[in-house]
Amino acid sequence: MRAYSLLLVLSVLGAAQTGTAVKYHATINDVKYVYGMAAPVAHLKSGEIIETNTLDAFGNALKKPGDRLSMVKGDNPLTGPFYVDGAQPGDTLAVRILDLQVDGNQGVGSLAPGFGALNQTTYTAMLHTALPERIWFYPIDKATNTATFRALDSKFSVKIPLHPFLGCIGVAPAGGEARSSLVPAEFGGNMDAPEAAAGNVLYLPVNVPGALLYMGDGHAAMGDGEIAGSAIEVPLTERVQVNVIKGKKINWPRFENDGAIMAVGAYRPLDDALRIAFTELVEWIHKDYGLSTLDAYELLSKVARVHLDEMVDPNYVVVASIEKKFLPPKKSGGGHGL
Amino acid sequence: MRAYSLLLVLSVLGAAQTGTAVKYHATINDVKYVYGMAAPVAHLKSGEIIETNTLDAFGNALKKPGDRLSMVKGDNPLTGPFYVDGAQPGDTLAVRILDLQVDGNQGVGSLAPGFGALNQTTYTAMLHTALPERIWFYPIDKATNTATFRALDSKFSVKIPLHPFLGCIGVAPAGGEARSSLVPAEFGGNMDAPEAAAGNVLYLPVNVPGALLYMGDGHAAMGDGEIAGSAIEVPLTERVQVNVIKGKKINWPRFENDGAIMAVGAYRPLDDALRIAFTELVEWIHKDYGLSTLDAYELLSKVARVHLDEMVDPNYVVVASIEKKFLPPKKSGGGHGL
Amino acid sequence: MRAYSLLLVLSVLGAAQTGTAVKYHATINDVKYVYGMAAPVAHLKSGEIIETNTLDAFGNALKKPGDRLSMVKGDNPLTGPFYVDGAQPGDTLAVRILDLQVDGNQGVGSLAPGFGALNQTTYTAMLHTALPERIWFYPIDKATNTATFRALDSKFSVKIPLHPFLGCIGVAPAGGEARSSLVPAEFGGNMDAPEAAAGNVLYLPVNVPGALLYMGDGHAAMGDGEIAGSAIEVPLTERVQVNVIKGKKINWPRFENDGAIMAVGAYRPLDDALRIAFTELVEWIHKDYGLSTLDAYELLSKVARVHLDEMVDPNYVVVASIEKKFLPPKKSGGGHGL
Amino acid sequence: MRAYSLLLVLSVLGAAQTGTAVKYHATINDVKYVYGMAAPVAHLKSGEIIETNTLDAFGNALKKPGDRLSMVKGDNPLTGPFYVDGAQPGDTLAVRILDLQVDGNQGVGSLAPGFGALNQTTYTAMLHTALPERIWFYPIDKATNTATFRALDSKFSVKIPLHPFLGCIGVAPAGGEARSSLVPAEFGGNMDAPEAAAGNVLYLPVNVPGALLYMGDGHAAMGDGEIAGSAIEVPLTERVQVNVIKGKKINWPRFENDGAIMAVGAYRPLDDALRIAFTELVEWIHKDYGLSTLDAYELLSKVARVHLDEMVDPNYVVVASIEKKFLPPKKSGGGHGL
Repeated sequence: MRAYSLLLVLSVLGAAQTGTAVKYHATINDVKYVYGMAAPVAHLKSGEIIETNTLDAFGNALKKPGDRLSMVKGDNPLTGPFYVDGAQPGDTLAVRILDLQVDGNQGVGSLAPGFGALNQTTYTAMLHTALPERIWFYPIDKATNTATFRALDSKFSVKIPLHPFLGCIGVAPAGGEARSSLVPAEFGGNMDAPEAAAGNVLYLPVNVPGALLYMGDGHAAMGDGEIAGSAIEVPLTERVQVNVIKGKKINWPRFENDGAIMAVGAYRPLDDALRIAFTELVEWIHKDYGLSTLDAYELLSKVARVHLDEMVDPNYVVVASIEKKFLPPKKSGGGHGL
Repeated sequence: MRAYSLLLVLSVLGAAQTGTAVKYHATINDVKYVYGMAAPVAHLKSGEIIETNTLDAFGNALKKPGDRLSMVKGDNPLTGPFYVDGAQPGDTLAVRILDLQVDGNQGVGSLAPGFGALNQTTYTAMLHTALPERIWFYPIDKATNTATFRALDSKFSVKIPLHPFLGCIGVAPAGGEARSSLVPAEFGGNMDAPEAAAGNVLYLPVNVPGALLYMGDGHAAMGDGEIAGSAIEVPLTERVQVNVIKGKKINWPRFENDGAIMAVGAYRPLDDALRIAFTELVEWIHKDYGLSTLDAYELLSKVARVHLDEMVDPNYVVVASIEKKFLPPKKSGGGHGL
Repeated sequence: MRAYSLLLVLSVLGAAQTGTAVKYHATINDVKYVYGMAAPVAHLKSGEIIETNTLDAFGNALKKPGDRLSMVKGDNPLTGPFYVDGAQPGDTLAVRILDLQVDGNQGVGSLAPGFGALNQTTYTAMLHTALPERIWFYPIDKATNTATFRALDSKFSVKIPLHPFLGCIGVAPAGGEARSSLVPAEFGGNMDAPEAAAGNVLYLPVNVPGALLYMGDGHAAMGDGEIAGSAIEVPLTERVQVNVIKGKKINWPRFENDGAIMAVGAYRPLDDALRIAFTELVEWIHKDYGLSTLDAYELLSKVARVHLDEMVDPNYVVVASIEKKFLPPKKSGGGHGL
Repeated sequence: MRAYSLLLVLSVLGAAQTGTAVKYHATINDVKYVYGMAAPVAHLKSGEIIETNTLDAFGNALKKPGDRLSMVKGDNPLTGPFYVDGAQPGDTLAVRILDLQVDGNQGVGSLAPGFGALNQTTYTAMLHTALPERIWFYPIDKATNTATFRALDSKFSVKIPLHPFLGCIGVAPAGGEARSSLVPAEFGGNMDAPEAAAGNVLYLPVNVPGALLYMGDGHAAMGDGEIAGSAIEVPLTERVQVNVIKGKKINWPRFENDGAIMAVGAYRPLDDALRIAFTELVEWIHKDYGLSTLDAYELLSKVARVHLDEMVDPNYVVVASIEKKFLPPKKSGGGHGL
């Protein structure tokens, strides 16, 4: 086990995170719409904390009944990029999500042309008359930690518990690519992963010097699959801590917390997203926990959990996970910082 | 609300089920390997209880290390069919699962050629050398309600909590079809659904007189997706109560309990299985709980749950669900017996 | 090379086929709607010729403007089954299509709810308002060998050259299954394959004694993919010769003529249908023409042809082929009867 | 019909193209590996001709038996970009391919890890031992216009007729994205389309000022689907003429020649690629040739052709086409320059 691993065990897993904080306030004037190369809005050292904010998926443009999607300047405006000193291609960036707070008192949901799992879309193209545009507003009550769904076509309303998370979190892609803020892929991005919530660490592959971390698209709550194409879309404030894990290369994003390891697959169709997530999880178990590949495969067939994050973006996102209680002790020197 | 609905509310939802029991003991000599027309092994009245047993997915043929898959006579031998008096095409059969017990002290898991989500298969054909056949045995401890995974390639072992359920439960298909016991589809079948467990009601479309209910393929526990192709395969004993809901037609299987309604989609690829499950769930909410279609769609985008049951059989199975606490009161006369 | 192979080379490949003919006339009263076990309408010896007729996909029910799909009694009525003496599970049935003639002077095309590649369907379920039902009639002119498309919404009309083929041709499935006449799969069935035309031989796996051959769903012409869900649907008269190839087992249907060998994949999604077709073609080349698996794979990457037969049925059908001029001479004893 | 349309009819459709030629010679030192923003290698006026060359998919690195894929610096090196004066977002770029010549006397085919339709890949991930790396060399004989396949594992060889085309041709993507030279998508790119051959016009959406045209990945011949992951890979010399069609916006690439119109769909799974191609083709027919949407859909179901270009890249490419002889006369003012 190299020295940095031990340090990271301390710094990444440690309960209270007290690194230096770098503050940055984002506005609609300096957001980005692609994950790629751009001038950093701030520089951080490994171990430091970002305190920032993100606009909602609509750039905070939808405020009241009657507002239309045509008022939205661009989807999923991103705060960033943040440049992490010392991060180099081939490293892994560990982003520990310390705290996410809804930054306002209202969320928004929408039905948009060309979007949604039960709708003809840009990529599942058909000849029907499109479903109509619709917008729902969700009052948020921080005292009860709930948002309220109010039906548009009847008088029904119901409270939904909040689970704030980052719909978008990712780094600059590999190979000189730049990808839209609508896309989830190997670099993270628009994963719409409820796993991107306080208490979890997200691992992302570093593809360019400084990694260039972006965040956006806060969600106050979301159903599995995000099937109509939106969550309860909200501005957020974030506290996240970044750590560079040197010389550790991963191919796809991973999440981890004290209880579980979670591998992300982001592609189409869902079948392939699931295959990616599970081959990554098998390999993770094999390398860091020492089970043979076939034993790991068999064990997952008995105890794995699958979370369908979304089936509405240009790629679909599946998270395959296993509780650590089902695993052998981690090998000395094995795996990430956790 | 018609009379039968009220009765069904009482009989199907009632806590303790005390209908007359029809007992039937299955052996390898009288199991079936297709869902289709066959001479009934027993007749029941609506409201009566079946007490029976099922063999494991291998016909109980694998007993000890060294046994091989070539010893298996046929996959997923089915107990049945049970003929339910009065069930006619266009009705729905409600199967309330009262109790499932592992019928033995050992379970089996296997890696089989042409099977598994990370393996080339009959239908996702490739040119690789196949993964090898492997068999794992799982001692079952009823005192602790666990099965034990023991790695083949290392000394690791771990206990897994039992969650017994029926991998196979279905009726004769529509249109004169007969389907292999490996197949899940509109008639239920090899859904590998952990939802088919005690405490839940399963609704199946009735396609032929008497419905012709089959059961088999007991699982002591299973990971989401059943990715290596098997669960902890066990013989089971079953107590299930059948009720005929006259004149109520459904297109795909549904589950329900006191807390949630759950719609099944069983097809390929997963994308389409998910679309089926969610369009069924939207329609269920619309018809029985009165939300408009688009309000139901939006609400699901915020609070739905998706469970991937399996991605290894000839069709893949997804269950989309919503907790009843997020729904309006059921409409008078709305929906099933529950 | 066993004796029967030599004989088959003579009988199957020979230019003019002069076997004894068995005649059978089908009407709406004795058609079938599933591929499965049923009392044979006729028995044949290997080498004999069937002279019969088939109704169109609508059972000849649609005759004139104003007729509706609700007048159709059942889709794809099948003529048969024909019992071929001596055919046993594990054999291959070679069906040489000698002649197909349109049996009438009009064809029909339709747009049906739940059907079509650009339409929400039973299996690609969505929430849109469905596309409307529409019916087009195609006058057929045998002198010019054309059918005429006449637009419903404008005055445009155009002639389309006839290419008569059997949309449905298949045998009883394996494992005791029975499948709807809408389904293509391992047993052939509703392949909607323009390859099922005069001049080609179709090989089908024999799954039950006598094979039980069915035919139906004649097409006068069809576009690749059959994307709106129908071809120019017509009644046909058929002359086909059947030969049993003993002890030769195939997994999926195959076509062959003097110029090419063609492997069928029938599943969903298209990706998997294509994988099936190509792994079958690689194996065919390897076994019968002696190239190594990887050489065959590489060669196909340079000269293969892919034909998308349909993407509208419960399974999708792809045919992968290679011209014989690109292959080594067939191995002595290699392959089918051809 | 606006003035430019008439001019384009003359300049784009005219038989002999005699515009001014801009010459540019590419080497391994100035190729690009992404479609995106980059300094132009040359500027052209609308109507002018590019005379240039492209390296093969391996950067011309593989020369003789024993050479390995690890010698390849980057896949699909691109010549360009070419800046077309006056091209603005919302316009269409028409690229008329005048002449393509193989630039050398040898082609290369390869089997590469993580690539190929019958191989586990980055995106269809599995647990098998990978297929081995293999390289085939194809001597090219310009006198007979053939390349020769020589088996690696036997003594078989066979001549394959040449059909030179550009595997890669595309422009800078929309929305600030930059995509790898391995990717086909809305901007064209690695379509591996045999349609990109002399005699055809390719239409591409203009997303950035100057369009920024790139070319590369020449193929001397290719099977449908490019299933093992490579064609006969060759350096090419190109003569192509570019024309800007002002104010005409398309969503996906299109091909056209005197006989047919062809729409491209580039996505995953194949099902969706096909849906894209056909909805585009229906719309093209509706807008430019005046058939109603449903008449166009029906007509395509009877006479369309589908060409599967490749099923091995990050997106799959399908071309749906119809011969012009089946269409009404083009509407006055309708459609592109042709």
